Amino acid sequence: MHTGKSYKLSEFLVWTRRKVYLLVALGFFPVILYEVFGIKWLDIPWPVIALLGTSTAFIVGFTNTQTYRRTEEAQQIWTNILSLSRSWGLICRDLVDDANHTKTLIYRHFAWLTALRYHLREHRVWESANKKHNAEYQQYYSIPEWETPLDIELAKYLSAKELKYILTTDNKATQILGLQSKTVKSLYNKEKLVLIQFIEIERAIRDLFLQQAKSEQMKDAPYPRQYAIINTFFVWLFCTLLPFGMIKDFDKLNEVVEGAIKGHMVWLLVPFSTLISWMFTSLEQVGESTENPFEGSANDVPISQMSRAIEIELRELLGETELPPALEPKNDIIL
Amino acid sequence: MHTGKSYKLSEFLVWTRRKVYLLVALGFFPVILYEVFGIKWLDIPWPVIALLGTSTAFIVGFTNTQTYRRTEEAQQIWTNILSLSRSWGLICRDLVDDANHTKTLIYRHFAWLTALRYHLREHRVWESANKKHNAEYQQYYSIPEWETPLDIELAKYLSAKELKYILTTDNKATQILGLQSKTVKSLYNKEKLVLIQFIEIERAIRDLFLQQAKSEQMKDAPYPRQYAIINTFFVWLFCTLLPFGMIKDFDKLNEVVEGAIKGHMVWLLVPFSTLISWMFTSLEQVGESTENPFEGSANDVPISQMSRAIEIELRELLGETELPPALEPKNDIIL
Amino acid sequence: MHTGKSYKLSEFLVWTRRKVYLLVALGFFPVILYEVFGIKWLDIPWPVIALLGTSTAFIVGFTNTQTYRRTEEAQQIWTNILSLSRSWGLICRDLVDDANHTKTLIYRHFAWLTALRYHLREHRVWESANKKHNAEYQQYYSIPEWETPLDIELAKYLSAKELKYILTTDNKATQILGLQSKTVKSLYNKEKLVLIQFIEIERAIRDLFLQQAKSEQMKDAPYPRQYAIINTFFVWLFCTLLPFGMIKDFDKLNEVVEGAIKGHMVWLLVPFSTLISWMFTSLEQVGESTENPFEGSANDVPISQMSRAIEIELRELLGETELPPALEPKNDIIL
Amino acid sequence: MHTGKSYKLSEFLVWTRRKVYLLVALGFFPVILYEVFGIKWLDIPWPVIALLGTSTAFIVGFTNTQTYRRTEEAQQIWTNILSLSRSWGLICRDLVDDANHTKTLIYRHFAWLTALRYHLREHRVWESANKKHNAEYQQYYSIPEWETPLDIELAKYLSAKELKYILTTDNKATQILGLQSKTVKSLYNKEKLVLIQFIEIERAIRDLFLQQAKSEQMKDAPYPRQYAIINTFFVWLFCTLLPFGMIKDFDKLNEVVEGAIKGHMVWLLVPFSTLISWMFTSLEQVGESTENPFEGSANDVPISQMSRAIEIELRELLGETELPPALEPKNDIIL
Amino acid sequence: MHTGKSYKLSEFLVWTRRKVYLLVALGFFPVILYEVFGIKWLDIPWPVIALLGTSTAFIVGFTNTQTYRRTEEAQQIWTNILSLSRSWGLICRDLVDDANHTKTLIYRHFAWLTALRYHLREHRVWESANKKHNAEYQQYYSIPEWETPLDIELAKYLSAKELKYILTTDNKATQILGLQSKTVKSLYNKEKLVLIQFIEIERAIRDLFLQQAKSEQMKDAPYPRQYAIINTFFVWLFCTLLPFGMIKDFDKLNEVVEGAIKGHMVWLLVPFSTLISWMFTSLEQVGESTENPFEGSANDVPISQMSRAIEIELRELLGETELPPALEPKNDIIL
Repeated sequence: MHTGKSYKLSEFLVWTRRKVYLLVALGFFPVILYEVFGIKWLDIPWPVIALLGTSTAFIVGFTNTQTYRRTEEAQQIWTNILSLSRSWGLICRDLVDDANHTKTLIYRHFAWLTALRYHLREHRVWESANKKHNAEYQQYYSIPEWETPLDIELAKYLSAKELKYILTTDNKATQILGLQSKTVKSLYNKEKLVLIQFIEIERAIRDLFLQQAKSEQMKDAPYPRQYAIINTFFVWLFCTLLPFGMIKDFDKLNEVVEGAIKGHMVWLLVPFSTLISWMFTSLEQVGESTENPFEGSANDVPISQMSRAIEIELRELLGETELPPALEPKNDIIL
Repeated sequence: MHTGKSYKLSEFLVWTRRKVYLLVALGFFPVILYEVFGIKWLDIPWPVIALLGTSTAFIVGFTNTQTYRRTEEAQQIWTNILSLSRSWGLICRDLVDDANHTKTLIYRHFAWLTALRYHLREHRVWESANKKHNAEYQQYYSIPEWETPLDIELAKYLSAKELKYILTTDNKATQILGLQSKTVKSLYNKEKLVLIQFIEIERAIRDLFLQQAKSEQMKDAPYPRQYAIINTFFVWLFCTLLPFGMIKDFDKLNEVVEGAIKGHMVWLLVPFSTLISWMFTSLEQVGESTENPFEGSANDVPISQMSRAIEIELRELLGETELPPALEPKNDIIL
Repeated sequence: MHTGKSYKLSEFLVWTRRKVYLLVALGFFPVILYEVFGIKWLDIPWPVIALLGTSTAFIVGFTNTQTYRRTEEAQQIWTNILSLSRSWGLICRDLVDDANHTKTLIYRHFAWLTALRYHLREHRVWESANKKHNAEYQQYYSIPEWETPLDIELAKYLSAKELKYILTTDNKATQILGLQSKTVKSLYNKEKLVLIQFIEIERAIRDLFLQQAKSEQMKDAPYPRQYAIINTFFVWLFCTLLPFGMIKDFDKLNEVVEGAIKGHMVWLLVPFSTLISWMFTSLEQVGESTENPFEGSANDVPISQMSRAIEIELRELLGETELPPALEPKNDIIL
Repeated sequence: MHTGKSYKLSEFLVWTRRKVYLLVALGFFPVILYEVFGIKWLDIPWPVIALLGTSTAFIVGFTNTQTYRRTEEAQQIWTNILSLSRSWGLICRDLVDDANHTKTLIYRHFAWLTALRYHLREHRVWESANKKHNAEYQQYYSIPEWETPLDIELAKYLSAKELKYILTTDNKATQILGLQSKTVKSLYNKEKLVLIQFIEIERAIRDLFLQQAKSEQMKDAPYPRQYAIINTFFVWLFCTLLPFGMIKDFDKLNEVVEGAIKGHMVWLLVPFSTLISWMFTSLEQVGESTENPFEGSANDVPISQMSRAIEIELRELLGETELPPALEPKNDIIL
Repeated sequence: MHTGKSYKLSEFLVWTRRKVYLLVALGFFPVILYEVFGIKWLDIPWPVIALLGTSTAFIVGFTNTQTYRRTEEAQQIWTNILSLSRSWGLICRDLVDDANHTKTLIYRHFAWLTALRYHLREHRVWESANKKHNAEYQQYYSIPEWETPLDIELAKYLSAKELKYILTTDNKATQILGLQSKTVKSLYNKEKLVLIQFIEIERAIRDLFLQQAKSEQMKDAPYPRQYAIINTFFVWLFCTLLPFGMIKDFDKLNEVVEGAIKGHMVWLLVPFSTLISWMFTSLEQVGESTENPFEGSANDVPISQMSRAIEIELRELLGETELPPALEPKNDIIL
């Protein structure tokens, strides 16, 4: 997540420069045909372009609405995880009357958070984090999950035996919650908890399961590819045809100028068609980079930071005083 | 669900080719009347076309928003089923203190998932999975529910007696949950469960009922046909009139060309009208193929894969080690 | 609900024919003034029409979004009723340990469904089911609630004494749930239920109350009339002015034709203005016929069919074998 | 709420007539400058107007969507209140085993409804109910809360002592629920209720608190004034500039007419600009009059009627037979 | 929150004047080049501008929809806090049977509200409250959290010891709820509460945690910066190009005027381009100032006022009679 005032125009230009090169080429193409090769009928009637442009704006607007909602929903899921984690802390401290087990249950919760965020930050083929324009930007911030291996992180929170078991399982987060339930059950069997407490804690686990499932689905169900591709078609068809639609209008400018530039006004088309096209492709690129909120891009939901905040608050609840530092943004980017 | 980077343009063209043929014909029709039969007044004023085009973009945008939401909702329903299934696993393992009954309850849950997904993958007359362009694409992926009969799948999870009974019932998923409730009740009667546990499990069954009902309604209540048809009218009326609206503009190009092509520029209309029309019909086709998320098309919610994942995780919870393999995408398509 | 592949174009034309007549007249009106009476200044500048057309498309789009959501919400309410009914069946069977009372409670639930759906299918003055174009279509399907009187239907499910009482009450569905609560309370007083069970069942009644209230409000709070009327104004103002805006464009076609038709091209305006206007009025008519999901129109939520399905499933749960048949669509329409 | 077939066109015209006068004046203004004072350059290029018109349609569409949602949400809140009130009736009758206390609790609930609806129908400075066009329409229907003082209404439901206390408090509805809780607690202390019943009733009070808070916030948090004013700016700027943009087009009509009217066609601009502007200002006025669902306007949510319906149903539940009559619409308007 | 009738046009003009200066300059720029330096080819074809204008209207509309929803959601969160606080009052009074502890728990709740609202009113770098146009407006209203330090406010509600502890913690609101839970637990350990009451109160704390987390996330997760910047690009690109697109149209006016102004009509472009541009930048500025509902701007959700209202109502519940006064709007602005 970018937590600065704004992206800078220069950052934005660098980030989108590859598309700008392409758009400039698309602008030169009809002009060269027209001016150099003299193919004067290269004129698509403007109304066709206008209709296509309006439709493209519709489609891109639709796509960006949906990608925005994906990131918004991911944010809400983790807001719920934050809130449930705090409740989990209180439940473990005040319902479970045993400092040892309280600590075990709370640390294992950190393990759950860790397993979940490592899973969410894995790479998927449809994600755009590895596209060149995003990959080169990754040097400006850090992605904790890509820097330390999972087992080292988990070892902070789990006993050696549990760690070994969890590393063999398929869905680590699920099985960690399975361990939580097992511990609670054994407390119930040992009569350290009465039934109502036991069930209340099981319900808390169920609430965590729901947020875990939602996170995983957001990760593993991409923005429908059929919608993604039709969006791309519209944008690029529009960018390709746009300069053909403007060529006559720029040619007419030759009537009002004098001197050396007379007869060459069509070349002016290139900056303008690039500018307009660039707005549309940038809009598309912004949407695409918001589509997957857990991919390690600069626009991710900051799940590492939130997990750390939870750790700090729950350790404070336990009465610990040596707390890990909060994660800080690097170049205004915090993950 | 398509889990690749993107559909390929070539795949898309093949998928939409039948409509392209028709659109080409619609493009040639006015040109032939104009050029061959010399009917020169075949000109619909462009503003009429522009107005119709904008309206059509509105309507198609509306339709695609709704069809997107249907698939999104179906995804959410199954995210809930995933989450509730995990909780069901923990409830059966940790509330029910009897390994045999735990296993019965969990396996019967697999039977419920199976009955539900077979029901959801049945054919409905309004679904587009059997339309030619979708049917021919089905060779590239597999639909587990269409490959093995239901009774063979259910036999893995139910006793012979239960299987026989369930196969006679009208709504199998409902009656399987009925069996679950009966088992839990008998455990309560035998005093293996106390009342609070019994009621907690009944609530879990109620939560499953809700997701089942939502799945079934999504299956059986189609996108309102009155909206579907007006959408189709708009798109095809637009595609039919579009070339009539462009004919004069292309005829004017004859004024700026020389040589053999002079006088024949109107024929250029065909590729352009086809291109624009194709964007609109493709948009419609994408919407239509997203409308029914459980029809066996490439854009379905992957309920077979999710059911298998649940089976793997819950068996792991039971301590089993011989687990079935996860379902893998075939040509990037996973159902 | 229409459960076929699609409405047919011919059905649609018949359904909208009355408006077509009017639109044809609106098309002829300016042409006659122009051609017959020679009032040549009858020309509204096209940009005015285009602006009005775009705005009309906005407004109609807004209206159709809202009417769609009304039907969608009605569908969700009844999905909840379906789900809660199944839970109610299990609760009555497995929490209440008395086959007689179980049957009483479940049959009275059928009475509740019946009272509710009869209430929902009553006529309201703002509903469009009685408009000519809808009324004539009603011969193609059947509306069970309009065929059998309520008391005969209720008599199947209630004792004579209860029936008599219920028929005197103002809100029958509410008072039937009142009877359910009374029965449960007497079971609790007789110690056939313990308190926790009693409260669990009361909660189930509360959930049914919520869906009942939502259904009733959907029935009794129409789509706000102030929005409905402004929508109608926009559509008809547009349809009235549209031919005035096209008249000059068609007059110009006289310049390119020869022979007998020369000088008469303006008459061509009529089919085109009718076609465009018809798209807009059809869109409005589709919206209007979706506005009230419980009015007995072909686009209703199928509450009769769902009530019957519930009856079949719950009787199956009770172990009954002589089940009523499922309701079947008639000409693809099922209510 | 209007519960008739539709507003009549004549009612609508009367309701909007003040704006029509102003719009006519705005139409005459440029025509007089142009024709009488001969200022012939008074021509705003149409594309500027078209762009402004499209943007205005966007903004007004946005506003109307939000105001519609406010009324829709208010409707949902009161649907919940209706449903919770019925549950409250059953809870009081069947959980509280004492006819006297049952009656006290249910009548005090009527007092809560009364206090709430009187609060909601108070006047706020941003509401439009007191604007002239709405105020004059109020003679056609009745607003019960403006006809009888609160204390007289409350006296029907509260003991003299309670009434005196409640009238001194700041938020009457909150303190009435406070009394409910006090009564329930005393029943628990006297062991007429066991703890689980006590807590169940407290939860019901909590649910009522939520709907109360939502109603109050809907009342006291207006549609954001910054959005309201920018909407007004757009509409009136558009209405002011619109006739300037049409002047040349109407002037051109002089070329095709003959006789006495020749040279005066510009005056035709007035009715057309008024018509188009009127559509936009009417749309705005409809939105504005839907913005505040509890202001005493004809488009309010019918909270008086719903409160009365609740009273009738709950008294029926208590077995009373002398019931107050349902509130009836007056001129199709029911509050 | 503005609670007056409306912002005044004059206030609005003052508030947006800095942008007006810039827009005037952008309007003069092409006119000077055209008229003074004689660069007559400075003409961007209008269709390009129209397309850009429509797209900009789309994007700004999208942004304003999202910022509106942020404020709406913030409002809902605090409606929930209001409602949960009332329930908390009743729970503490009627479940906890000890006037001292009741008072402690309720006053500590005021401390929680205070800690939360001070946190929410801290400054963030992306907020616009400190931008010049907003900062100068702050003299017209008061922001309680910026006037009294937090420790003085907290001292009213917490014991000296608790205050000291809370001031050392990282997240004060969380740790205050931690204290609440500790107190409740000690009451349970002393057997002043039974388990069911204890758990009921813990659930109330959990509900408060959820609203706290939602408030914090709304504060700390800004409107995605990538969307914010692309919105700004579109608006300013449009405002820059707009006058270039209008220049020819105004030049043509020279054909119809006579006398001294002939040849200078192009200067008329400046007011019109400024007017249109100003609508767009104002729309953007309104959106931006609604984006962050807890920043201390005039459009904030009134959390200080709501907290005070809660304090008054809960003290009334406690039977206190010396109540603090309600917060009053200053120049119609209430925070």
